[in-house]
Amino acid sequence: MKRFDWPVRVYYEDTDAGGVVYYANYLKFFERARTEFLRSTGFGQDALMRDSGIVFAVRSITVDYMKPALFNDELLVSSELAVVRRASMLFEQSISRKGGDRALLCRAQVRIACVDVHRMRPSPLPDELFRSLTYDA
Amino acid sequence: MKRFDWPVRVYYEDTDAGGVVYYANYLKFFERARTEFLRSTGFGQDALMRDSGIVFAVRSITVDYMKPALFNDELLVSSELAVVRRASMLFEQSISRKGGDRALLCRAQVRIACVDVHRMRPSPLPDELFRSLTYDA
Amino acid sequence: MKRFDWPVRVYYEDTDAGGVVYYANYLKFFERARTEFLRSTGFGQDALMRDSGIVFAVRSITVDYMKPALFNDELLVSSELAVVRRASMLFEQSISRKGGDRALLCRAQVRIACVDVHRMRPSPLPDELFRSLTYDA
Amino acid sequence: MKRFDWPVRVYYEDTDAGGVVYYANYLKFFERARTEFLRSTGFGQDALMRDSGIVFAVRSITVDYMKPALFNDELLVSSELAVVRRASMLFEQSISRKGGDRALLCRAQVRIACVDVHRMRPSPLPDELFRSLTYDA
Repeated sequence: MKRFDWPVRVYYEDTDAGGVVYYANYLKFFERARTEFLRSTGFGQDALMRDSGIVFAVRSITVDYMKPALFNDELLVSSELAVVRRASMLFEQSISRKGGDRALLCRAQVRIACVDVHRMRPSPLPDELFRSLTYDA
Repeated sequence: MKRFDWPVRVYYEDTDAGGVVYYANYLKFFERARTEFLRSTGFGQDALMRDSGIVFAVRSITVDYMKPALFNDELLVSSELAVVRRASMLFEQSISRKGGDRALLCRAQVRIACVDVHRMRPSPLPDELFRSLTYDA
Repeated sequence: MKRFDWPVRVYYEDTDAGGVVYYANYLKFFERARTEFLRSTGFGQDALMRDSGIVFAVRSITVDYMKPALFNDELLVSSELAVVRRASMLFEQSISRKGGDRALLCRAQVRIACVDVHRMRPSPLPDELFRSLTYDA
Repeated sequence: MKRFDWPVRVYYEDTDAGGVVYYANYLKFFERARTEFLRSTGFGQDALMRDSGIVFAVRSITVDYMKPALFNDELLVSSELAVVRRASMLFEQSISRKGGDRALLCRAQVRIACVDVHRMRPSPLPDELFRSLTYDA
């Protein structure tokens, strides 16, 4: 199974008055990591939109929050592509502290659909991307 | 079961380059609605923190995204308190367009824990709040 | 000179680990108020884009931060249209606490250009909007 | 004059329905760069708060927006510490595209005050930080 790690630093913008990362902002970290995952296989989402007219839309997400991330923490977002179908993908992702206690902070399952941006309907993944995601190098 | 509706207007800040509300930002709308739900029962979270030393922490969330909200849309966030326990609550929430097609856009289940902010441990809901949430007026 | 007041409630999403509203988020409040200002004159920005192909782009902003806004504060954003030119507007805006000490929290000058979204070039304000903004009712 | 460059990637979270980076979000990029600037001199803001009880508060900011940053752009934030006083700093910052046309996108002047977090009053910069910022290595 393909696995991809991406580091994230926590800045003031990410935190709230409780002194921890605001619960919606972990979803930003998860998406940055998915974007870099795809980029690492050679696919930028700007090119996919421009050349193939497709975008990725999140269909559902489940997040379990175990421990809070704090201002200035260095985090590691781990992403695994658990399932790849013709027109959708399921990511398993987690965030842990990079140093110190290396604590697992939260976990997510994210279901993504491939969408034809002109017709706003589900679309198969471009062949080349599908092969790149399903065959191991 | 108590149900509470709260209107939300979509501004540029909420949207992304796909032309729709960014997927993490629906979590902001859900939280605004939970905050106003609690306020409508007579409990402000600033007072709860100051007077009782408790805060609410999201333990888990599941969101199903059905249709996208667009710039300038007027939305309605509906919140129901499905379960109230001594130290936790389960909200069922949904967002629909307020006018036009009144389409259901997304749905969430949100599990909230009551936390003692000084010991950073689970804490029972203050009695008065617990009663207010469990007894019907 | 036209003046327009718009209320804003501070939620957790707006604050940071310093316990106050994050400095970039006041710009969201200022923009919500400008959007509602225009709506109050009868112009929605979604219709302006769809019907006239124009959008408003911020050219420059100066913000003076005097006192911080806190979680749960009710704020009032006051907006004045100080200058209206054929293809640009200058807003003077301020944010104060709605209740309590009614303290003035911050102030901004915002220069906005009217842009033709297809050619991505400056465009005159639509006549009807220009008249609505320059003639007093 | 000390100058510090910090790269930033534009993700969906940063953009709006206009297809460009939302105007408030450049302030996040500017702050990330200032945070890393200070870190590069050996000072983390979490340690400064914990050990010296000081935080940095933005007193004023002026931003000129010249050209928009787009989804997926790689940006470079350049920061210069133009003035260092006993209890304040003035940063000159700019954002340009890292590759392609290397266009200058926006520019900011940011005045920062050093604040005693317990008394919520201006405080001198810690000696060691002051020396590190004013003496060239």
